[in-house]
Amino acid sequence: MTETTDTTPGWLSREEMDAARDRLPILYVNAVPVRTDDSGAVTSVGLLWRATDDGTISRALVAGRVLFHERVRDSLLRHLEKDLGPVALPQVPPSPQPFTVAEYFPTPGTTAFHDQRQHAVALAYVVPVTGDCRPRQDALDLVWFTPEEAVSPDVQQEMGGGQGVLLRQALAHVGHAP
Amino acid sequence: MTETTDTTPGWLSREEMDAARDRLPILYVNAVPVRTDDSGAVTSVGLLWRATDDGTISRALVAGRVLFHERVRDSLLRHLEKDLGPVALPQVPPSPQPFTVAEYFPTPGTTAFHDQRQHAVALAYVVPVTGDCRPRQDALDLVWFTPEEAVSPDVQQEMGGGQGVLLRQALAHVGHAP
Amino acid sequence: MTETTDTTPGWLSREEMDAARDRLPILYVNAVPVRTDDSGAVTSVGLLWRATDDGTISRALVAGRVLFHERVRDSLLRHLEKDLGPVALPQVPPSPQPFTVAEYFPTPGTTAFHDQRQHAVALAYVVPVTGDCRPRQDALDLVWFTPEEAVSPDVQQEMGGGQGVLLRQALAHVGHAP
Amino acid sequence: MTETTDTTPGWLSREEMDAARDRLPILYVNAVPVRTDDSGAVTSVGLLWRATDDGTISRALVAGRVLFHERVRDSLLRHLEKDLGPVALPQVPPSPQPFTVAEYFPTPGTTAFHDQRQHAVALAYVVPVTGDCRPRQDALDLVWFTPEEAVSPDVQQEMGGGQGVLLRQALAHVGHAP
Repeated sequence: MTETTDTTPGWLSREEMDAARDRLPILYVNAVPVRTDDSGAVTSVGLLWRATDDGTISRALVAGRVLFHERVRDSLLRHLEKDLGPVALPQVPPSPQPFTVAEYFPTPGTTAFHDQRQHAVALAYVVPVTGDCRPRQDALDLVWFTPEEAVSPDVQQEMGGGQGVLLRQALAHVGHAP
Repeated sequence: MTETTDTTPGWLSREEMDAARDRLPILYVNAVPVRTDDSGAVTSVGLLWRATDDGTISRALVAGRVLFHERVRDSLLRHLEKDLGPVALPQVPPSPQPFTVAEYFPTPGTTAFHDQRQHAVALAYVVPVTGDCRPRQDALDLVWFTPEEAVSPDVQQEMGGGQGVLLRQALAHVGHAP
Repeated sequence: MTETTDTTPGWLSREEMDAARDRLPILYVNAVPVRTDDSGAVTSVGLLWRATDDGTISRALVAGRVLFHERVRDSLLRHLEKDLGPVALPQVPPSPQPFTVAEYFPTPGTTAFHDQRQHAVALAYVVPVTGDCRPRQDALDLVWFTPEEAVSPDVQQEMGGGQGVLLRQALAHVGHAP
Repeated sequence: MTETTDTTPGWLSREEMDAARDRLPILYVNAVPVRTDDSGAVTSVGLLWRATDDGTISRALVAGRVLFHERVRDSLLRHLEKDLGPVALPQVPPSPQPFTVAEYFPTPGTTAFHDQRQHAVALAYVVPVTGDCRPRQDALDLVWFTPEEAVSPDVQQEMGGGQGVLLRQALAHVGHAP
């Protein structure tokens, strides 16, 4: 699961974080940004172009780590603002109930999700955004797709770590054909 | 479950509707209007003052029947606009998954919910509203309560048909003590 | 949405039911029978072979109407027993929260779901069954598929009315690639 | 959040775990064991008597940490077997979607949940158990309560860290008055 560096001053040094990643599941949030019409129906989903550590780029959902003493909803808001910019106006859902929990294992094949660096457990939410999105940091761009385009093989194969599956699970959750 | 008259021209005459109510469960939507802060946390819930058929008034949630050939989300939007006015700006959730299904039986005690007129099955949603609420029709007023006030015995006993229970289930769903 | 005739003595004559179907959304339950392993992970899903009114057969989920004064969970249990036999031992979920609401419209294309006879709104649940399934009535057979087989084009095209989409939404809900 | 010692050989020494607890949110599972009738309706909830570190005892839900490279559902099963014994026959839900996420903060008042030792984030599930429960380790006893008894002030005040709130949220989720 690719992510940008946390903008908040670190609670852990890189060495300490690396050590923790070898020993503990790390709590994440994943967000699927969507545009909706007046009735709340999803009309499009936003995917980031993100540079990965190995220099390639891939399409990605909003993702990031939950920090010590940070509420899940504050973490969600922080990562949405980090990736979509300060005027995206994300509507973080009122309920803490995620639509699913995505378990990224360092060993491929344990689940549908994979992250070679760590065992990350991500609470996944669909988040309507109503404002203007301006990707920041290593999120190079944000592209909006219709639900039909988002599940196309072309888009799916540009997503890594199983996030294509998570995107389809999100679309299923909002009533679309996944 | 008290509700206002449908503003949309009827699909059924009153006699036909009365006959159906004796024979079939009737599909409803229930909405709990909420105000949220930037992080999506619920800061207050809105309750209507509604005149009931027997001339008393009680506090109530937004409620109404789903019409023939009407999508659930369109019905939800229609009843929210009917009860909260045209500039309430309700954010109908992107997912059709309700937080619960409230089954109102004509016989008290079958479930926590009761409606002497009919067997109504209501899909229940928490709906953030960001605009200005101006109750219309027989919704006499809308009052905002903090989550703590909303579960107080005073407010609970002013709600009929089990809607006090539904309100507490909604607060539980958004992470508050019910 | 194909279904078997209700085995419970009717609350409505066929003529009355036909009249209601022209005027009101009709409340249904849909169930996706699954086998799970000890950890609750879904290992297979059960699909019925069902004869449709026009004489063809198609694969189908467990489906049926909620009767007047019947609780949703009693309706779910009744239809599961009707379609899977008396010793299927279905584990009806403790929560009334469905994983989705499938809206079948008589007009194709309004949603992903279609039922030419009526506007049916189905509360959809995933139901583990642990016993021996013996289809009854017009459910001709029950076949178990792995999650991968269930989403294959072959199986999907044997399902009508959008139930292939609902099956994939169910698989997404239980953490599988839809 | 009181818990028994993990029976699985540790991935972390106590010192390392203590260090991690000062720096990272720790992922937990919480389970509310329930008995259901044939229709899946919850008839009773099981609460443990648990000895806390300071020598007092309190009523508690099943709770425990998710280990490195352990799936959430395997963790849930492990903690259920640890607390309820080997023949409790818990039915871990097929979906990874928890009914809520309980955020235990070391600082009281941040949320409804508190754990002085750590920032723990617990995925919470309602789990029907059909077998014979025999508490083990420091779970001294398991007592079944009706939903009405479980929300009584007497029982609520015997629960610590906000688990009384979580229990009521669970009851709300399964359709009971919380």
